[in-house]
Amino acid sequence: MATMFAPTYLDHNATTPLDPRVLEAMLPYMGQRFGNASSRHDYGRHARAAVDHARQQVAAAVGAHPTEVVFTSGGSEANNLIIKGVAAVSKPGCIVVGATEHPCVREPARQLQRAGWTLSTAAVDESGRIKTSEFDALMTGTPRIVSVMCANNETGVVQDVASLAAAARRAGAVFHTDAVQALGKIKVSFRDWGVSALTVSSHKIGGPMGAGALVLDKRVDIAPLIAGGGQERGLRSGTENVAAIVGFGKACELATADLHARSGRLADLRDGLVAAVSRMGAKVFGAGAERLPNTVFFAFERIDGETLVSKLDRAGFAVASGSACSSADPRPSATLLAMGVDETLARGAIRVSFGADTSRDDLARFCTTLEETVNGLRTLAAVAV
Amino acid sequence: MATMFAPTYLDHNATTPLDPRVLEAMLPYMGQRFGNASSRHDYGRHARAAVDHARQQVAAAVGAHPTEVVFTSGGSEANNLIIKGVAAVSKPGCIVVGATEHPCVREPARQLQRAGWTLSTAAVDESGRIKTSEFDALMTGTPRIVSVMCANNETGVVQDVASLAAAARRAGAVFHTDAVQALGKIKVSFRDWGVSALTVSSHKIGGPMGAGALVLDKRVDIAPLIAGGGQERGLRSGTENVAAIVGFGKACELATADLHARSGRLADLRDGLVAAVSRMGAKVFGAGAERLPNTVFFAFERIDGETLVSKLDRAGFAVASGSACSSADPRPSATLLAMGVDETLARGAIRVSFGADTSRDDLARFCTTLEETVNGLRTLAAVAV
Ligand SMILES: Cc1ncc(COP(=O)(O)O)c(C=O)c1O
Ligand SMILES: Cc1ncc(COP(=O)(O)O)c(C=O)c1O
Repeated sequence: MATMFAPTYLDHNATTPLDPRVLEAMLPYMGQRFGNASSRHDYGRHARAAVDHARQQVAAAVGAHPTEVVFTSGGSEANNLIIKGVAAVSKPGCIVVGATEHPCVREPARQLQRAGWTLSTAAVDESGRIKTSEFDALMTGTPRIVSVMCANNETGVVQDVASLAAAARRAGAVFHTDAVQALGKIKVSFRDWGVSALTVSSHKIGGPMGAGALVLDKRVDIAPLIAGGGQERGLRSGTENVAAIVGFGKACELATADLHARSGRLADLRDGLVAAVSRMGAKVFGAGAERLPNTVFFAFERIDGETLVSKLDRAGFAVASGSACSSADPRPSATLLAMGVDETLARGAIRVSFGADTSRDDLARFCTTLEETVNGLRTLAAVAV
Repeated sequence: MATMFAPTYLDHNATTPLDPRVLEAMLPYMGQRFGNASSRHDYGRHARAAVDHARQQVAAAVGAHPTEVVFTSGGSEANNLIIKGVAAVSKPGCIVVGATEHPCVREPARQLQRAGWTLSTAAVDESGRIKTSEFDALMTGTPRIVSVMCANNETGVVQDVASLAAAARRAGAVFHTDAVQALGKIKVSFRDWGVSALTVSSHKIGGPMGAGALVLDKRVDIAPLIAGGGQERGLRSGTENVAAIVGFGKACELATADLHARSGRLADLRDGLVAAVSRMGAKVFGAGAERLPNTVFFAFERIDGETLVSKLDRAGFAVASGSACSSADPRPSATLLAMGVDETLARGAIRVSFGADTSRDDLARFCTTLEETVNGLRTLAAVAV
């Protein structure tokens, strides 16, 4: 393993390497401290204490109270839990979701639609930001649930969650935000934003896969998606994944400890990359909006994104085309289509997303390879004509 | 850690220590091989290959085809998925569950009942076995879903799943069995039993927490509980928990490789313990039925189970009272009440469940301590009168 060829990883929005400090925190719980947190003996008490500690770490990272944290298996589960959980205790009503939501918000919303709910989509402008006036108009329809993501996984575009939440609250809706891509990159605050519910996921911030959380205002009544033993205040049954929760807690602590310095460094890298790809003639998506400091989503005219990603892969760079979370899906990015990007250009999209381990040198090498590859593909295309 | 006092662990039905060989298989995926299995680059392909390999290992362990394995976060999720998943694509109908099912079958069944379904409970006799004639009578009501567990987590009582499945199939129902406690202790065979769906969980067999599976006949149509990116053939979205799935696969391989020898050894230990506690005057539950080789559930008249468990804990033995999975719940074991055990005796119940790491000596020491503790409590009780 040690001498294995390791491609340069520029796909941190898909998943992140596990931080070695997180692994170290987890290992005792994969060893002698293996107990079930519900067991009433020495092993169980150690597991429970570890879960409680992690709950505090997660709460601190998102500006919430520990009792508001409901651990889940990840972001997709948390998003499904809030949407279906509210629906299960309501009569069919109206749900509003942002036009660029992740499929794990869009799909449960469609499931509600099939069950008799009215589904409305809040449109975005060409830079990917929710159109405020249209959003406000949708709020007059007294929606029961409104879900708008904090930061988009493809473009990195950041929404003004606090304002949207205030409007939704005035309309009497449960306002949820998917903060999976925001945590560890920009400041996330459940309390300050005034949201009813917020989703985070461990594996996007240097934590292990298998843990996430729905942070939930206790005044919001929901039914559990997974019912049973009554763990997590009855909102999420199933044996707690102790080691993963411990790792998630530690990752939250690390991801927010030096947020300011880290995101400043990432933003510099991003701005450098944006300048470089623009010079090569790429169109950068969402360039007009506030974006995550680690994400650049762009396309070259007449160059297929899939082809480019696979050439870059062979050249030793791991990047994504469209959304990695649904890359089994061959359709062009729904996010770009919602932003009014034409389908041909959207098919060219590639996403570079970096992390704490990404260096200036990594990106310089990447830019050199990208330019060569793009020029190579252009030459091929010219010859083919 | 190395010199930490380690109580003797006799609560393997709550959770099991992670097998060091399983941890070893997982560690690469918590290190350099950290990719998202949906990513289309080198990191992603390694993750996908690992998930595919684990799928084969799980399928082999349960006598199914790899394409029938749907990975979930654990047993509770898999049980909820089959029950709610079938219900979501049907009109309200009738559901039948065994009287001694785990809460993560009973509770989703109750959720269906609140949504307009008819819920019937298949009664058990005093040894904890489903009463065949009553079960057959329930099948005449053309149930849509029937769920009867393979082996009970508290008593260890094993049901005749193949016969029940055959009867349910003749009635046109989807037959599901919760085999969480059966796997690795007795032979489990999806194909031979003729079931439509079967649940297993990693952390009960020496694997990590955070993985489980619903093994599902592809002719059964279900809606996903967690919708989104479309992973697991659209039946369970969310980034696959690669390391946990790899560990689950390895644990399945190990748990079934030497099943015959291991369960023979465990059954000897069990029979020794049954004889010993019977000599001390305990009543052993389910003694008349076929039971798991690792589980002994018993009670002493006039001795409170919670008190006994806590005294044993202080004396260095980890055992359970009632079901560890729902031990936040102070009511006496629903399993025992369903078997007609009176409430006072049921409150005395304690469960000893052992595993591959349990020795004859562990149980000899346990019996000595148990006898002293029980005698001590009896003396106290006599003095108090
Ligand atoms: C914005 C967003 N929401 C939700 C998810 C789903 O999270 P998870 O992979 O933990 O299920 C992802 C990524 O997969 C994401 O990027
Ligand atoms: C019989 C049975 N079914 C299901 C479960 C739930 O499995 P998990 O802990 O993986 O959610 C358990 C134990 O918790 C169990 O004993």
